[in-house]
Amino acid sequence: MLLAIQQAHLALADGDVPVGAIVVFDGRIVGTGFNSREKNRDPLGHAELTAIRAASLNLDRWRLTGCTLYVTLEPCPMCAPAIVQARLDRLVFGAYDPKLGAAGTVFELILREEYPHRVEVIGGVREEECAEMLRNFFSRCRKDRD
Amino acid sequence: MLLAIQQAHLALADGDVPVGAIVVFDGRIVGTGFNSREKNRDPLGHAELTAIRAASLNLDRWRLTGCTLYVTLEPCPMCAPAIVQARLDRLVFGAYDPKLGAAGTVFELILREEYPHRVEVIGGVREEECAEMLRNFFSRCRKDRD
Repeated sequence: MLLAIQQAHLALADGDVPVGAIVVFDGRIVGTGFNSREKNRDPLGHAELTAIRAASLNLDRWRLTGCTLYVTLEPCPMCAPAIVQARLDRLVFGAYDPKLGAAGTVFELILREEYPHRVEVIGGVREEECAEMLRNFFSRCRKDRD
Repeated sequence: MLLAIQQAHLALADGDVPVGAIVVFDGRIVGTGFNSREKNRDPLGHAELTAIRAASLNLDRWRLTGCTLYVTLEPCPMCAPAIVQARLDRLVFGAYDPKLGAAGTVFELILREEYPHRVEVIGGVREEECAEMLRNFFSRCRKDRD
């Protein structure tokens, strides 16, 4: 999770909401990503999607069986099903998202009986550290706006 | 929708599930996409995401306000929220998906009060044509397997 937090700092540097992610396979990092929606003007530029795409390219397969995704924030309704689509084994996330969290907090879009694949979910890892980074970012945004 | 169907035929040519999409802004096509999960080994290679990314690149913005997405199949639980994330004005789809349709058939992941954005949804446009293409594809897959 520390490495995902490092990724989140890269988003911060670009003025994007600080969320970072990594994909680990067999003890090594095969994909990294950070939120780049503003920087790249990409509505799909969330940390999870970027890390998943990088891992697929790296492993040369779309089924990321055997892989774990670490992300600093609970995935949104777009990214949660993407984790299932990519057939990841496990999702580990930091802060819970009370507004749009889709790994159980607001929506349940990972563990659904309609899906052909099961992902193990662990939430709240280094939660405070991940949440604080987001709080600081939004607090600075509000100050800049005022 | 005819142009989205043409895109779907491109997926067919690569052995991918035939789904195609286009994004229209101000009367012109600004993004196209077809399912390329197998061809590009990309778990995010759905027609909608590819068309959205192309439109964002083309218009140089992540908010696709004023745009309409046409897609031959009802979006899945990953693509439906992506359409909201990208702030599209309108979604027009062909065939309904009784297994994973996320524009109301199985999941409702477009029109949610939790979201900060509203997308207009029109389903069932050239439904039979879009559905038949998918039925033919899966029927051929089953024959090849037997």
